[in-house]
Amino acid sequence: MKKRIAVLPGDGIGPEVIKGALQVLDGVATRFGHEFETIEQVFGGAAIDQEGTPIPEATLKTCNDSDAVLLGAVGGPKWDKGDVRPEQGLLALRKAMNVYANVRPVHVYPGLEHLSPLKSNKVKGADFVFVRELTGGIYFSEPKERNEKRAVDTLSYTREEITRIVEKAYDLASSRRRKVTSVDKANVLETSKLWREVVEDVAKKYPNVETEHLLVDYAAMRTISNPTSFDVVVTENMFGDILSDEASVLTGSLGMMPSASLSENGPGLYEPIHGSAPDIAGSGKANPIGMILSVAMMLRHSFKLEKEAEAVELAVFETLQAGYRTQDIFGESGTLVTTKEMVNQIHFRM
Amino acid sequence: MKKRIAVLPGDGIGPEVIKGALQVLDGVATRFGHEFETIEQVFGGAAIDQEGTPIPEATLKTCNDSDAVLLGAVGGPKWDKGDVRPEQGLLALRKAMNVYANVRPVHVYPGLEHLSPLKSNKVKGADFVFVRELTGGIYFSEPKERNEKRAVDTLSYTREEITRIVEKAYDLASSRRRKVTSVDKANVLETSKLWREVVEDVAKKYPNVETEHLLVDYAAMRTISNPTSFDVVVTENMFGDILSDEASVLTGSLGMMPSASLSENGPGLYEPIHGSAPDIAGSGKANPIGMILSVAMMLRHSFKLEKEAEAVELAVFETLQAGYRTQDIFGESGTLVTTKEMVNQIHFRM
Ligand SMILES: CC(C)[C@H](C(=O)O)[C@@H](O)C(=O)O
Ligand SMILES: CC(C)[C@H](C(=O)O)[C@@H](O)C(=O)O
Repeated sequence: MKKRIAVLPGDGIGPEVIKGALQVLDGVATRFGHEFETIEQVFGGAAIDQEGTPIPEATLKTCNDSDAVLLGAVGGPKWDKGDVRPEQGLLALRKAMNVYANVRPVHVYPGLEHLSPLKSNKVKGADFVFVRELTGGIYFSEPKERNEKRAVDTLSYTREEITRIVEKAYDLASSRRRKVTSVDKANVLETSKLWREVVEDVAKKYPNVETEHLLVDYAAMRTISNPTSFDVVVTENMFGDILSDEASVLTGSLGMMPSASLSENGPGLYEPIHGSAPDIAGSGKANPIGMILSVAMMLRHSFKLEKEAEAVELAVFETLQAGYRTQDIFGESGTLVTTKEMVNQIHFRM
Repeated sequence: MKKRIAVLPGDGIGPEVIKGALQVLDGVATRFGHEFETIEQVFGGAAIDQEGTPIPEATLKTCNDSDAVLLGAVGGPKWDKGDVRPEQGLLALRKAMNVYANVRPVHVYPGLEHLSPLKSNKVKGADFVFVRELTGGIYFSEPKERNEKRAVDTLSYTREEITRIVEKAYDLASSRRRKVTSVDKANVLETSKLWREVVEDVAKKYPNVETEHLLVDYAAMRTISNPTSFDVVVTENMFGDILSDEASVLTGSLGMMPSASLSENGPGLYEPIHGSAPDIAGSGKANPIGMILSVAMMLRHSFKLEKEAEAVELAVFETLQAGYRTQDIFGESGTLVTTKEMVNQIHFRM
C-alpha cells in the first residue's frame, strides 16, 4: 500500500516527537511492505515566523492533497501576545479539512496507575473514548463580536452537524463495550435540547448500544468520581474541550495520549494531546508516545491497517513493560530514557 | 438584631436539611440574642405540583422582601419530562433577585482526606473559593431559539457585568491568600477576550493580589492535578457551573458543601450544592452539613455576623472531630448517625 502523509512538525517539542513517530512509521513500512511518502510543511508559530501566517496556503494544499496529516504541536508564549496566534491556524486547519470528529482515547495503562492523581482503585481499568464535535458550535458560529462595552459569541448547531458526530459515536461504541454517554446542558441550552433529541433518534438505530444522558456539570464530576463507568462519551465542541482535557489528567500520563480528528471522506488529522512544551524543547525530555500512538490511530482510521496499528500499540506496550520511561512517567523503578532512546526501543520492538 | 428570612424547602431532601438548619439557626438566636423571623414558601417541583409554576408570585415576593433566602434543593425525575421544570424556577429566582455572584468554598476537611477520589497528598490542604458569575452569559442571553433543523444560544457579557463579579473576586481574595485565578477561553471566545481585559483593569486596583489567567480546559486539568494552587477562582456562568462541580468532587464530601449567591444590595440566596436526592428523601440519610454551613455563609455575608458564622462552623468542625458521620461521609471509624442526630450534635455544640 502506498500512502501520502502531510507532516506538520509545528512548535516546541513538535519536531522531536514527529521525528520519532516517523522512525516508527518507517518500521511499519519495512515490516509490512508499505510505502509512506511524507511531505513536511511549516505550521503554527513556526509558520508565523517564516510567513506571517500560522497556516500558509502551501501547507493547507498539501494537507488536503494527502491521505492523512500528522501534526506535532503548536503554540508557545512567544506568539501569545501577537495579532495572529498559532491556535488560529489549528482552528482554520480543522475547519478547512472538515475534521468534525475528534476522537480521544483515555486509557490508564496497567502498571502506570500510580501516575494518576486519583487513587489507584478509582482509575484502574478506566478505558474510554471521547468523541468531540470539532468544527461547529461556539468556536465557529456567527455573530462573534466585541467592542469596548460588550462582547458576543454564538453557539449554534444544525441537526445534520449533530447527527453525523452522534452516529460516529454510536459506530465506535458498537465496536467497543456498547455504551454511549451523551453530555449536554439540556436544562439550560436550546442547542442541548436539539442535541438530546438527535441522540434519542440515532439511538433507535443502534438497539444494542446503551444510551445515557448526562448534564455537563455532572459529567465533570463523574469523570473523577467514576471514570470506569464510561465507554464512549459524545459531546459538543466546547464541552468536549473541557471534559477531554479533564479526563486526560486521570491517566497521569498526558504525554502518552493520542488523538484523531476525522472527516467524512477526506484525510484525518492526527496529533498527540500534549502541548508544545517549549520549556523542554530540545532537551530530550519529551515523551514521543502520544505522537507514536497518533500514528497508530492514523493507520487504523485513515488507512484501515488494523494489524499495523496494533503492532505499533504492542511495541509501545512492550517497551513500557520492559520498564523504559521518559521523565514525565518516571516513577520509583524503571529505566529513565531520552526521547530518542524511547523511540529506538519502540522501533526495535516493531 | 432582627432579621427576616425566606425559607424555601424545595424538593427531595430539601425539607429535611432545611429543618436541621433552622434548628441550628435557633441555637444561634438563643446564644447570641438575635431574632430570626422565618417565612416558609413553596418552590421548585413542590410548587409545580401545588401551583403549576416552580416560582409562584408569593414566593418571589417573600424572597425580595426578606433579608436573606435559604433554599433546600430543587428538582427530581418526577418533573424531568414536564413542560415546566423546577430548574426554571431556580434560574428565574437568581435573575429576579439579581444574585450575580455565586460563591462556593471548596474545602477539604482535615481528617476527611480519605473520602476524596484523589490521593491524599494531592488534596491535603486544598482550600479555595469559586466565584461564578450567575445571572448572565449563555444562561440568559438572547437570541435563544430552536426549530426542527437548528438551535441557537447566545453568550454575551457587558463590561459592567464582568467588572462587578471580578471585583467581588478581588475583594474576597484580599481577605484570603491574595491570589485570583481568572478562567476563560480567550484563545477562542470574544467574551473571554473582554473578560481578560476587564480582569487586567481590575487587577491594577489590587496591587497586593496576584493574578493569573487560565484557559478553561487547562483549569479543568489543574483542578485535579494541583488543587492546592488555587485561592480564589473567578469565571463566567457556564465555566463556573462545570468547574465548581468538578472541584466539589475533590473533597469527597459533596453533602457538606455550602454556597452563597450574592446581589449588590439585596438579599442573598443560600443553598447547599448537593441536589434533591429523591432516592434517600425521608430515610434520615441526608447530610445536613451543606445546608448548615450555608446558614453560616448567610450570617457572614448577609448579616455581617462573623462571630456567629464562626460559631456555626466550629460546631460543625467539632462534631466531625468527635467522629459523627452521616452515611455519605462514613468511613472505617466514627459513629454513623441520621440527619436528625447529626443536627442535634451540631446544635448541642453551639
Ligand atoms: C488551542 C485550542 C484552540 C484548542 C481547542 O480549544 O480546541 C485546544 O485546546 C484543543 O483542545 O485542541
Ligand atoms: C439546575 C441548573 C440550572 C443549575 C445551573 O446550571 O446553574 C445547577 O447546575 C447549579 O449549578 O446550580
